[in-house]
Formats: sequence, C-alpha cells, structure tokens
Amino acid sequence: MSEEELRQIIRQVIQEQSDPNRVPIGVSNHHIHLTETDFKVLFPNQKLTVRKQLKQPGEFASDQMATIVGPKGTIKNVRILGPFRKHSQVEIARSEGFQLGISVPIRLSGNLNNTPSIKLQTPDGEISVQGVIIAKRHIHMSLEDAKRFGVEMGSTVSVEIQSEDRRTTYHDVICRPRKDFVLEMHIDTDEANAANVGNNTFGRIIIPKQK
Amino acid sequence: MSEEELRQIIRQVIQEQSDPNRVPIGVSNHHIHLTETDFKVLFPNQKLTVRKQLKQPGEFASDQMATIVGPKGTIKNVRILGPFRKHSQVEIARSEGFQLGISVPIRLSGNLNNTPSIKLQTPDGEISVQGVIIAKRHIHMSLEDAKRFGVEMGSTVSVEIQSEDRRTTYHDVICRPRKDFVLEMHIDTDEANAANVGNNTFGRIIIPKQK
Repeated sequence: MSEEELRQIIRQVIQEQSDPNRVPIGVSNHHIHLTETDFKVLFPNQKLTVRKQLKQPGEFASDQMATIVGPKGTIKNVRILGPFRKHSQVEIARSEGFQLGISVPIRLSGNLNNTPSIKLQTPDGEISVQGVIIAKRHIHMSLEDAKRFGVEMGSTVSVEIQSEDRRTTYHDVICRPRKDFVLEMHIDTDEANAANVGNNTFGRIIIPKQK
Repeated sequence: MSEEELRQIIRQVIQEQSDPNRVPIGVSNHHIHLTETDFKVLFPNQKLTVRKQLKQPGEFASDQMATIVGPKGTIKNVRILGPFRKHSQVEIARSEGFQLGISVPIRLSGNLNNTPSIKLQTPDGEISVQGVIIAKRHIHMSLEDAKRFGVEMGSTVSVEIQSEDRRTTYHDVICRPRKDFVLEMHIDTDEANAANVGNNTFGRIIIPKQK
C-alpha cells in the first residue's frame, strides 16, 4: 500500500467516526424471550445460562434453544435470549412467517395485542406462546443520544444504510431512548440481506425537519 | 360504506394513478435461466413448456424445476424461466447464498465474470453452472418511459417503496430501457420482505438531480 493510499484510508476512517449522525447496526436473528414459568416447562432441569452478552446492558444470548413449530414448517435451534421477561415473545423475520405458515404483524417489542400464537418445542417440553411478531425497525439510544438527535421515545426517523451495491434508506424507524441503552439500530435478517449489511456497515440517522 | 368513504377511496385511487413517478414492483423468487444445451442434460426427455407468461414480453415461467445443490445446503423446486439464453444463470437471494454455503456477488443479469459455479440436479441429470448471482435492483422500462424520466441505459435512480410499517427507499437501482420492456422494478424476496411488499405495493421513482 502506498503512503497516499494509507492517508486516504485514514481520512475516510476519521470522517466516518466524526459523523455525529452515525449509527451502529445490530442484526437480530430470530429469537425467543421467555417468562420464567414458560422456561421451566421447556427446560425443566436447566438454568438460563449466559452464552454471550449482547450490546444492550444486561441482555444476553443464552445456551438454550427451542424449535418453533408452525402449521406449514418449523425452525430449529432458535436461541432463547435472557433475562426472563414478564411475557414470552417470539421474534421472526417476515420470510420465516411464510415458512411457518402464519400471518405475523410488524410490532415493537412488547406490543403483543392480537398477535398470533405458536408452538415451541424442546426435547423436554412443549408450550404455546401468544406473541409472535416481526420486529419493527428501532434504534436503542441513551438519553444523551436522544437529546443530541432532538428525538424522544417513539419519534420516527429514517436511517440510510451505507452499504456497497445496495444502499438503502429505512424509514418508519422508532426511537427508543433509555438511560442504560447503547446507540444501536436493530434490523432483522431480511432487512440486513436486502441492504447487503456486513460487519463494517453503518447507518446514518436522518431526522425529519420540524414542521 | 358511506358515500363519503367511497369518495375518499376514489380520490386516493385517482391520485395514485396520476402520479407520473409511480412504478409497479415485481418480486423475483429464486430462478434459473438455461442454455438449450444445459436444458437437454437436465431434462433429456422434455420440452421447455410455458406455465405462466411474465410481465416482460416473451419471458415465461416454465413447468420445469431443478434443485440447487450447494456445499452447505440445497434449494428444491427452483423454477426454470424461459426462453433459453446464451448463458445459463442462477439467481438467488442473499439469504439463500448463506443457506447454500456460497459467496455470491450482486450483479445485473448477464454480468457473469468471476461469479461462482453451482450444481443443478433433476431426477434425470446433473450439471455445474458458472453464473450464480444476487440480482442488482433494476427497473425495466420502455424507451418512452426512459425519455419521460430523463434516464438512459445504466442510469442509477432511487425508488421509494410505499408500504405499510416498513417504508423503504432503495438506492443503487439501475435503469434498463428497451423498446419492448414494460415498466416494472424487480427486487428479490429479501428486498420484498424487508420492505413489507404486498400485492398492492407500488414504488415511486426518484431521479437524482443533474449536477
């Protein structure tokens, strides 16, 4: 690499990092949140154990997995995320709704009114969970981030995904500021593939102009 | 339905149809184009028969299907599209590249330099095809459409997908005007799911301003 090429790369990195509107992207694979009660039915002899901490404080991927059983198909080895929640919830991509044979609404986590039910299976147990959703695009952020962007809980913004060959602007992205959240846009696997998202792909938040 | 509700719906339909930048969306499922020679190996006792005409004149979905066999997985019942081409070509979604276990570039149809090979199988034969791609977003259009939009072959535009809950603007969309083409944006299944595209979802073409 020539000195000039190196200088060019360094200039790019500095410019990227100095963009105040830059947002890291986290791709959510299908996953399951469980109540402690539901967990005990599926894993009667186990504890929910940490496999990997996620970016949002306290959240983790566990060692436990279950199979989602739909009327038309199944999805095996779906990771249980911890910690336990007050309501069990299954998050899948739209493509996987077709594969399972169920009609799934696009919802923010926790908004489970009128969402369908699905069967979860492990070698040790089986339950029906009411609360299958396709995750609505959202951005976790600290209260300082929200102030800096001029947004509040529930504000709708757009994010330009700055990828090669498939640059994409996702609109209808909901802001979720919380004291302990870390800045990260969550999209699902369909959205990551559609926008050609790789390990080094970043987003750029676009705040609608005040009317 | 009240008269006023009906009037409102009619107003919406007229407004939609009078938008000169409106583009119909065609979702391409994974599919295979074959040379006549490759076809004869896979289907030695058959003719390529029309199952359904596609929107672009002369193009059709055939009755014939093959299995794509990758190092990590397979995709069954992949439709052969007709008519025959000068080069065989396999078009899959990015998600399916991961499923098959191959790294696939994003390319316009026909740009097959340095694209990977894959095995195709039927009950009667087996071939290796060099030319697996993820389709680059593109818009088929007539020469009149191109003139109207002020674009030419290879121009890059953006298209806003006007869907519920997941409004999306796809950039890096290549214009492909041809005398006999009909206006239609082609996206793949990952892109359709990411943007929540249904039967009544339309796009709106955004032409970059001249510099």
